[in-house]
Amino acid sequence: MSKILNLDLGFSLVSKKDREKYSKKIEDIHNLIYEKKGKGNEFTDWLSWPSDYDKKEVKKIENKVKWMKNEGIEILLVIGIGGSYLGSQSAIDFIKGKMNMQDKIIFAGINVSSSHIKQIEKKLENKKWGICVISKSGTTLEPALSFRHFKKILEKENGSLAKDYIVAITDEKNGSLKAAATKNNYDTFVVPNGIGGRFSGITPVGLFPMAFAGVDIKKVLAGANKASKELNNLNNDAYEYAITRFILNSKMNKNSEIFTTYDFDLDMTSEWLKQLFGESEGKDGKGIMPLSVSYSRDLHSLGQIIQEGKKTFFETTIWINNNKEKIKVEKDKLNLDGLNYLSGKTFHDINKKVFDGVLSAHHKEGGIPNIVITINDNSEETLGYMWYFFFISVTMSGYLLEINPFNQPGVELYKKNMFDNLKK
Amino acid sequence: MSKILNLDLGFSLVSKKDREKYSKKIEDIHNLIYEKKGKGNEFTDWLSWPSDYDKKEVKKIENKVKWMKNEGIEILLVIGIGGSYLGSQSAIDFIKGKMNMQDKIIFAGINVSSSHIKQIEKKLENKKWGICVISKSGTTLEPALSFRHFKKILEKENGSLAKDYIVAITDEKNGSLKAAATKNNYDTFVVPNGIGGRFSGITPVGLFPMAFAGVDIKKVLAGANKASKELNNLNNDAYEYAITRFILNSKMNKNSEIFTTYDFDLDMTSEWLKQLFGESEGKDGKGIMPLSVSYSRDLHSLGQIIQEGKKTFFETTIWINNNKEKIKVEKDKLNLDGLNYLSGKTFHDINKKVFDGVLSAHHKEGGIPNIVITINDNSEETLGYMWYFFFISVTMSGYLLEINPFNQPGVELYKKNMFDNLKK
Repeated sequence: MSKILNLDLGFSLVSKKDREKYSKKIEDIHNLIYEKKGKGNEFTDWLSWPSDYDKKEVKKIENKVKWMKNEGIEILLVIGIGGSYLGSQSAIDFIKGKMNMQDKIIFAGINVSSSHIKQIEKKLENKKWGICVISKSGTTLEPALSFRHFKKILEKENGSLAKDYIVAITDEKNGSLKAAATKNNYDTFVVPNGIGGRFSGITPVGLFPMAFAGVDIKKVLAGANKASKELNNLNNDAYEYAITRFILNSKMNKNSEIFTTYDFDLDMTSEWLKQLFGESEGKDGKGIMPLSVSYSRDLHSLGQIIQEGKKTFFETTIWINNNKEKIKVEKDKLNLDGLNYLSGKTFHDINKKVFDGVLSAHHKEGGIPNIVITINDNSEETLGYMWYFFFISVTMSGYLLEINPFNQPGVELYKKNMFDNLKK
Repeated sequence: MSKILNLDLGFSLVSKKDREKYSKKIEDIHNLIYEKKGKGNEFTDWLSWPSDYDKKEVKKIENKVKWMKNEGIEILLVIGIGGSYLGSQSAIDFIKGKMNMQDKIIFAGINVSSSHIKQIEKKLENKKWGICVISKSGTTLEPALSFRHFKKILEKENGSLAKDYIVAITDEKNGSLKAAATKNNYDTFVVPNGIGGRFSGITPVGLFPMAFAGVDIKKVLAGANKASKELNNLNNDAYEYAITRFILNSKMNKNSEIFTTYDFDLDMTSEWLKQLFGESEGKDGKGIMPLSVSYSRDLHSLGQIIQEGKKTFFETTIWINNNKEKIKVEKDKLNLDGLNYLSGKTFHDINKKVFDGVLSAHHKEGGIPNIVITINDNSEETLGYMWYFFFISVTMSGYLLEINPFNQPGVELYKKNMFDNLKK
């Protein structure tokens, strides 16, 4: 396999012939996408972003990160929710490893839990830290409250220096966060108008925290750029994935998609996928409910109901083909656990056997459709490529469902109720 | 509300009258349960465990923990999967806080990810640590491989002392882990025969790691005991919850249950619930697929599809009524974020408004059935009570579905395939 990302539909129960029935429709939608005539097309600037992005701004991000590190800032507190959170969190876990980074990049503003706030405060005690606050408007309650809270602490600790330890990623001109940044002289980076939250990982929204974590952000963009060149034709895997899901949902009555991974550094990638697909598709009573499982862990929890429960779902596995860490099973003299027959094998090879065993159990014996997406590795380039693959795919998917894949009107209702309650 | 746990079915769309139609059935099953005549009744020793448990063994757990701490052991590496993982992990997060404990109790054996193994190794570097390995048989591949791997490292670091830094929780007599423990002289605690993995949090399986984390384990058992006295009658909330879910599933075609929480320390409680319900119910093409969301975070990801997608699910919220941390919104001179109208309010009060806003948006405007379980606090007693509540409930639920709630035949298939592949 020479590609960065390989799609295997052989276990999907949807034949090439079935998919081909939609070729005219795919072509029409393809034209809609690139002629920017589909619903919500004003939010498709991500299409050409990987080549069009402002190189100077990326340089400025890298410089600011360098400056903060030179200042001795050990921890970056990233304040954001939804797309202003999931992109960078999932990317950092994917590339750098979840446990490696959990004390260096801390995320806040994702809830109003006082227990969470208190725990973050403890992590920051006696450390030098800075804030990256991300909000287009500045009015989303959860991050706004968190920012107010932690800014006060940062100011108490650093006095007039605090403003240099704060970076705001926000609208270019408007909104309360932009106003606060101007007033207080924070460095700012722009949330572009033409790219919605769940597509914003490739903009400063995702790139700043990633850069602080040591991710080579230009390589992420290069990966996305590569995908934008390879997936801009009529016969590409992103469309094949979309049409397969569409058939599974509309013709075979599969209402849920279980994103399946075998490496816990991908747990947050599954959360990112849930937002991307759930928020893009879930409108007008349509859409596939996205679930996720982290294997082997969840084979010993949801495994039972997946194997023998009601089969209203299909699985989509993301498998990383290469693993940098070559840990091997060692020989044991006493062999009390009886595992010496595995000695010399790598954990990664064994993990592959787990995957093969599950695929066979779920697909062959359980009759569950399985889509397998194999990616090369956990590099920056692969991440950028994979993100773009899913961007293209969800766009096709949204238009197949005849909805606007780029809005999220249903998120407003709880906010309205909440603000009404708060103002009472 | 004077009770530890309060069930509110007012938003469930299932009326008391509908529930009462099942009163005869409930009574029959109730008798089956307590006369130990239902399917799988040989695994219902948890029913009386909270009063019957071996007090000496609990004392022995506490003493061993004390000894390890005196030895300067800072980190406990807990190796287990499924029920040998989710009970203690969820309890520790719930009571002690997820971020507070993530570097003190580290869980391994939940996958075969070499990247995960490597990250754990880094966390253990230059620390004094011990192992708690949990497996009834010792043959489950994931924990067995992890134990082999980390035991070698521990032995390299501590020589002949290593055996005292290892605790094995395993079968009383049989299995490869028991044999290894005897041979190597590890301290052992018993996985009881009559209590399955997902019910084992109240046994040494859950209690040892919890005790190391500083949880008062006798109070957990006391909470479970209180529940066992209050929920052993015909008209109890655990049965009401079970029958409501049953009606939502069988009469109203709700195939999924979304466990909803508003405090990230409950994320793993949701995972625990997924195992308890998914593994108990998901058989013979039956069962409700359990999902979970962590709010506010997921209001900005799955929120859209929950609000406006296909309504094939209901929500069950676990709300913690009291929060120890009384963090308040502070006044800000400039008020650039416009949030001064909230100053003086606690984060917990605001979180409650989020919850109220969601409940109204999802239930009233979205037509989604909602079950609300309010618990007093995040104390040991509450946890024990809540666990037992769900134990009773899932037992009733399994029998309503006419399946054996205590086995998990579907977990074997992937294992068989995997071992076949490995032995090739």
